[in-house]
Amino acid sequence: MTHAREMLDTHPGSAAMDTAALVECIDACFDCAQSCSACADACLGEEMVGHMRRCITMCLNCSDVCATAGRILSRQTEFDPAMARAALQACAEACRLCAEECEHHAQEMNMEHCRVCADACRRCEQACNAALSAVGM
Amino acid sequence: MTHAREMLDTHPGSAAMDTAALVECIDACFDCAQSCSACADACLGEEMVGHMRRCITMCLNCSDVCATAGRILSRQTEFDPAMARAALQACAEACRLCAEECEHHAQEMNMEHCRVCADACRRCEQACNAALSAVGM
Amino acid sequence: MTHAREMLDTHPGSAAMDTAALVECIDACFDCAQSCSACADACLGEEMVGHMRRCITMCLNCSDVCATAGRILSRQTEFDPAMARAALQACAEACRLCAEECEHHAQEMNMEHCRVCADACRRCEQACNAALSAVGM
Amino acid sequence: MTHAREMLDTHPGSAAMDTAALVECIDACFDCAQSCSACADACLGEEMVGHMRRCITMCLNCSDVCATAGRILSRQTEFDPAMARAALQACAEACRLCAEECEHHAQEMNMEHCRVCADACRRCEQACNAALSAVGM
Repeated sequence: MTHAREMLDTHPGSAAMDTAALVECIDACFDCAQSCSACADACLGEEMVGHMRRCITMCLNCSDVCATAGRILSRQTEFDPAMARAALQACAEACRLCAEECEHHAQEMNMEHCRVCADACRRCEQACNAALSAVGM
Repeated sequence: MTHAREMLDTHPGSAAMDTAALVECIDACFDCAQSCSACADACLGEEMVGHMRRCITMCLNCSDVCATAGRILSRQTEFDPAMARAALQACAEACRLCAEECEHHAQEMNMEHCRVCADACRRCEQACNAALSAVGM
Repeated sequence: MTHAREMLDTHPGSAAMDTAALVECIDACFDCAQSCSACADACLGEEMVGHMRRCITMCLNCSDVCATAGRILSRQTEFDPAMARAALQACAEACRLCAEECEHHAQEMNMEHCRVCADACRRCEQACNAALSAVGM
Repeated sequence: MTHAREMLDTHPGSAAMDTAALVECIDACFDCAQSCSACADACLGEEMVGHMRRCITMCLNCSDVCATAGRILSRQTEFDPAMARAALQACAEACRLCAEECEHHAQEMNMEHCRVCADACRRCEQACNAALSAVGM
């Protein structure tokens, strides 16, 4: 349970976009920021850590980008569509790259943490793309 | 719904502390990081923004500290108790200070976003204190 | 004085792009992350804080995006050009938006902290665009 | 060259502590945040990455804590000494732990990036301790 929906509902202004898409995107961004930090650490704990270098890096990058996108979307008072679009595009790309790498390790090496992390990344990628549609071009 | 529990359960190592306390603390930290970013923004949107300076600052500080604590706790491969304690102590303090300020605005000025944010801060403060007990001194 | 150049020179691998452009971009990103956090706070301290809402928001967004871009560029072991491009594009956009807002306050309201912050933003915007050219399309 | 000193000099309020100690601490925090992100990545690029797990983790933790402390100190409008102390104590501890680990790799394994990173960590540890003295207990 998170407070994102309640925070949005009690904001003195009105949201600049569809609130369901916004709340899902904020929740997905913060969740993915956590999952990717945890997956980078789990990969680091694997015996074959030498094979996990790209996965660790994609996870670290994705965690940073998601945390930033989640914060930018949480700021609705002076919401700027151009800023939101740039952040969402970067986030969707980071999630896609990280999901692809994690899915590879989940399938080829049965790494369960990579399967869970890929799940969080794909959810966030979709939420970012839905938010991009809601923001408009 | 977050992936924190699943990420921990699929980690190749074993958690350095009670996993229920750990998952709750990680979830509370990321949730509070979001709520505090949103509350800083909601305070900025209030007509009487001149009265919200301290609240905005406490929220920005708390959001940063919570995001950092949530990441540090998410790293279990080379968990260091001294590092965890320092991060948890800072986080409990940031949450306490922010909750007190938000509760003041919730009570005196009926600001609902501050009430919701104080809720997230108190949950996180308690989770940090429980995690501190679980880590040991 | 920062350690960015020395960190890059002692990295076990070789940088994925022109090192002068890379070091300047990393330094500019971390500097701009600091300036924007400080300018958001300085704007909050202005008597006419009600007129500073957009500037505070652009500064908070820009600080987050710059910190993330600076970290992504600092990771050279498994450098991914698509990830770098997405982060750099978001950062150049955040810096442009923040610089425009800060320049407005510097010119119309003689706010010196906005002039200094705009300087940091324009430097970072240029460094991101130069890094984008160095990464290639 | 950073803009930290200029940002502080143009702030509408007055700094809550000795400005020389404050600027040095802010600069050291952002520099150390960068060095530690870069050192985690350089360690990941080492052939013997399996021996670098603790160093990577200490660097990731230290980078997060330093970035947070640097931001908290950059906020002077509603500076709270209790918040500053908690952040500075966590930062000094993170820098100490990371410096010790990096110094070990610099001495035993001739890792030059660890020597440079330890330098940034020790500078930041000292700056945090000096800032703690300036804030008062």
